Amino acid sequence: MKALVIAEGALRLEDRETPAPAADQVLVEVAGTGVNRADLLQVGGRYPAPPGWPKDVPGLELSGTVVAAGPGVRWLSPGDRVFGIVGGGAHASHVLTTENLCTLMPDDLDPIAAGGIPEVFITAHDALVTIAGLKPGERVLVHGVGSGVGTAAVQIARAMGATSVGTARTPDKLEKAKELGLDEGVVAGGESTDAIGEVDVVVDLIGGDYLSIDVEVCRPKGRIVIVGLLGGAGSELNLGAVMQKRLSIRGTVLRSRPDHEKAAAVAAFGAQLVPLFADGRLQPVVDKIVPLEQGQEAYDLVASNATFGKVVLSGGGGGS
Amino acid sequence: MKALVIAEGALRLEDRETPAPAADQVLVEVAGTGVNRADLLQVGGRYPAPPGWPKDVPGLELSGTVVAAGPGVRWLSPGDRVFGIVGGGAHASHVLTTENLCTLMPDDLDPIAAGGIPEVFITAHDALVTIAGLKPGERVLVHGVGSGVGTAAVQIARAMGATSVGTARTPDKLEKAKELGLDEGVVAGGESTDAIGEVDVVVDLIGGDYLSIDVEVCRPKGRIVIVGLLGGAGSELNLGAVMQKRLSIRGTVLRSRPDHEKAAAVAAFGAQLVPLFADGRLQPVVDKIVPLEQGQEAYDLVASNATFGKVVLSGGGGGS
Repeated sequence: MKALVIAEGALRLEDRETPAPAADQVLVEVAGTGVNRADLLQVGGRYPAPPGWPKDVPGLELSGTVVAAGPGVRWLSPGDRVFGIVGGGAHASHVLTTENLCTLMPDDLDPIAAGGIPEVFITAHDALVTIAGLKPGERVLVHGVGSGVGTAAVQIARAMGATSVGTARTPDKLEKAKELGLDEGVVAGGESTDAIGEVDVVVDLIGGDYLSIDVEVCRPKGRIVIVGLLGGAGSELNLGAVMQKRLSIRGTVLRSRPDHEKAAAVAAFGAQLVPLFADGRLQPVVDKIVPLEQGQEAYDLVASNATFGKVVLSGGGGGS
Repeated sequence: MKALVIAEGALRLEDRETPAPAADQVLVEVAGTGVNRADLLQVGGRYPAPPGWPKDVPGLELSGTVVAAGPGVRWLSPGDRVFGIVGGGAHASHVLTTENLCTLMPDDLDPIAAGGIPEVFITAHDALVTIAGLKPGERVLVHGVGSGVGTAAVQIARAMGATSVGTARTPDKLEKAKELGLDEGVVAGGESTDAIGEVDVVVDLIGGDYLSIDVEVCRPKGRIVIVGLLGGAGSELNLGAVMQKRLSIRGTVLRSRPDHEKAAAVAAFGAQLVPLFADGRLQPVVDKIVPLEQGQEAYDLVASNATFGKVVLSGGGGGS
């Protein structure tokens, strides 16, 4: 198998021995695997791999075909097309994962693009539904609406009967987000809270100074979910408003969760979102597909902040 | 009836016409009625009464005897001993409230002391159980453990199989709190987070700089509930820790909730806490009982921060 290996802060394609699955493990030949910001941090040495996962091969999500299954595997078989999340190691031609971190892919989904779905849709679904308890008719604010998580959150909000307002740094990202169902867009930077209006739920990928905006625009009982810190980790908080409006501020991250919690998130994804991919109400948003061999280019593209949606590496398996 | 009326930032005992209950209202002759910090703020002109409640008579909780019931009242009758919460008006000899904001008092409870139970026990129960989802075996940090809410939180945590660590400004408050079931105490001011140790849930009555301590001592998936801001409303927040530890920060306040939410909180109190008062596992913590006529003295006592537990006004009804 081939893998993108971290060597002195950069990526190098290496040949590695293809592992054999044991117990409840499956070996998946990778069709697509998205590049996420956590991968960039890991390559930069600032975000060590979670325990039990490859330390030197990044990659948190994948689509592909099961090519071998351990003796304890119960419902997957070689030939099954799956997608799912892992704690690392997906930026490769093959990944060793476990059955309960995979779910079956709908037939009509592009197998490579599907490799950019799990991480951001599970994160957005977990933030909006599991954490914030989004209800139909509510209004969602998505900061960083052109990001992978942002484009997923807009689609999920719409599919659930909620409305959305999004911020992005350029008007063209807002226009593209509107094609996905975003109701209103506000160019970030000099945005006023008046332009955003009142909201019930915030999916905040920026953090930093944006938290003050979040607190100000939230209606009573509003829920703010912090899923990224592109704007910095330190923040001022108006606790008086948090108390009087009875707000909730929740931080969340998928990568460092124990595997049984990842499995629960995958199960919720399989039950609640995969059917919406099957009938076309949700779609992967892919900025560019890059061959695994040109991995560094894909990472540079994500780092540029110029992308809309996901950058996905094609692993060589299952894709056309 | 007699009532403590706010006049130019102070309290004056006045005679008022006793109101007649309509619809689902009940008239309660007040045995006891606790003084809360929100009352002090209201008298100081900084916290207007919520809509639908008396603007010039403070008082958010009461115990007493039903003396008249409106035609729509379903399960209460004159003579019933009740306690509950209101949006204001309880610092009087009689209060007009609604049936669903009352619950029956256990026979063995001191009727005057019981007037200091509802506000703080409902607040602490709502914070620990409804908001934070406290589970047996978890460890709770209570800042301001000698306060009314603090002494309630310690008892509820213990009754639920959790352990607690509390902070207070003087060692004698910590000693008294230990008699209520506090497991460990830390004198506030120069407290180190090492002395507090790791916790799962924080009930924070102080806010301000304490939020940084809360975030630091919380275990992954910890829940911080802000129920008071004695230390100030502004705060610094380490969003990186909030995200990586997947913390939740929730603000809560009882007084400004709509009546149907107050009724839900009273129902949970009646079902989950009142039986524990009946069998003695919970007890009201009363620093001093002051006659309604000396209301200002009671307010000054609460403002002094020198009390342990509640200051309760005796309304003249139902007590011995």
